[in-house]
Amino acid sequence: MSDSSLLNQLIESLRCLPGIGPKSAQRMAFHLLERDRDAGRQLARVMDAAMERIGRCERCRTLTEHTRCQICANARRNVSLLCIVEQPSDIVAIEQAADYDGLYFVLGGRLSPLDGIGPEELGLDRLEARFNEPELDEAILAISPTVEGLATAHYISELARCSSLRLSRIAHGVPLGGELEFVDGGTLAHAFAGRQGL
Amino acid sequence: MSDSSLLNQLIESLRCLPGIGPKSAQRMAFHLLERDRDAGRQLARVMDAAMERIGRCERCRTLTEHTRCQICANARRNVSLLCIVEQPSDIVAIEQAADYDGLYFVLGGRLSPLDGIGPEELGLDRLEARFNEPELDEAILAISPTVEGLATAHYISELARCSSLRLSRIAHGVPLGGELEFVDGGTLAHAFAGRQGL
Repeated sequence: MSDSSLLNQLIESLRCLPGIGPKSAQRMAFHLLERDRDAGRQLARVMDAAMERIGRCERCRTLTEHTRCQICANARRNVSLLCIVEQPSDIVAIEQAADYDGLYFVLGGRLSPLDGIGPEELGLDRLEARFNEPELDEAILAISPTVEGLATAHYISELARCSSLRLSRIAHGVPLGGELEFVDGGTLAHAFAGRQGL
Repeated sequence: MSDSSLLNQLIESLRCLPGIGPKSAQRMAFHLLERDRDAGRQLARVMDAAMERIGRCERCRTLTEHTRCQICANARRNVSLLCIVEQPSDIVAIEQAADYDGLYFVLGGRLSPLDGIGPEELGLDRLEARFNEPELDEAILAISPTVEGLATAHYISELARCSSLRLSRIAHGVPLGGELEFVDGGTLAHAFAGRQGL
């Protein structure tokens, strides 16, 4: 099998998927070609359309093929709450797990001056404008508690200071069902610092 | 996120890939959309072309976009040797590992009357025709030693009986680097039955 054959091109192209090495890519290519060509055609069609047509929501910056995403366009969501997340995938996780009914704002990353990611790349000017909208009561930071995440959270809290907004962050601590002895030290220290009265 | 959004369609379509569950599909979709749209477009293009244009080699029945695959079309391969395998992926494995320079024949499965897979589905009539070609000296069976595989091998050995062909099968036994205590009983029994003089 030479490297230029269409089969090898397919195997090579499948390796752009995260977590897919040469063996998995080969298995996928043979599976589609031998057992499920219709699914392969469908995947090619949807993927092409998704790459071309999915852009960012003009209001919350999540991924959508419309001008506004389905959450921002939903009149039944609570417009007084705004949850600030790093990635569109965080919205999916929160929607599946929590009964949060407010809106979202997607930063698209964390402040990281060394990587050239400053306030503009995260759309913080647009976030500040939303902080000043009168219907907003509370903003909830749902950002990973890494060094860069904490710096980003600090920057955003400075932005919110001028407005009459309540700003909170989701709790950091021991995960549900987590055995204390297997929880890392940083999380345990956070859990102690954030202890709550009973 | 409603189920009809293009993003959800992409996640659903990615699940047609073997070994990909909902979490992995979501991770792949977000990775392509946020970090590598060009790779996604390229994958869509190659996949569509592969599903439409890849057919079977008229001579060995492996997957190829040409009338004859690159191995059958290669004049430097040894036409006196024919290796009979179950799947096109077996050819890839043999080409990478062994310095076999003969030709191949792909059955596309094993005899399994209950599943409606008989001699015709495996192209055994075409295999019999190749057995009678004068340039062929030896046919090597490289079929998995399962019950169905052994039945298929037996059927093929009956086909070869009429011709002056040498028929062999690849050795079954303990894999290289395999610890005896961890090898399954069937393999060990095969290894004893197939012991070779020193």
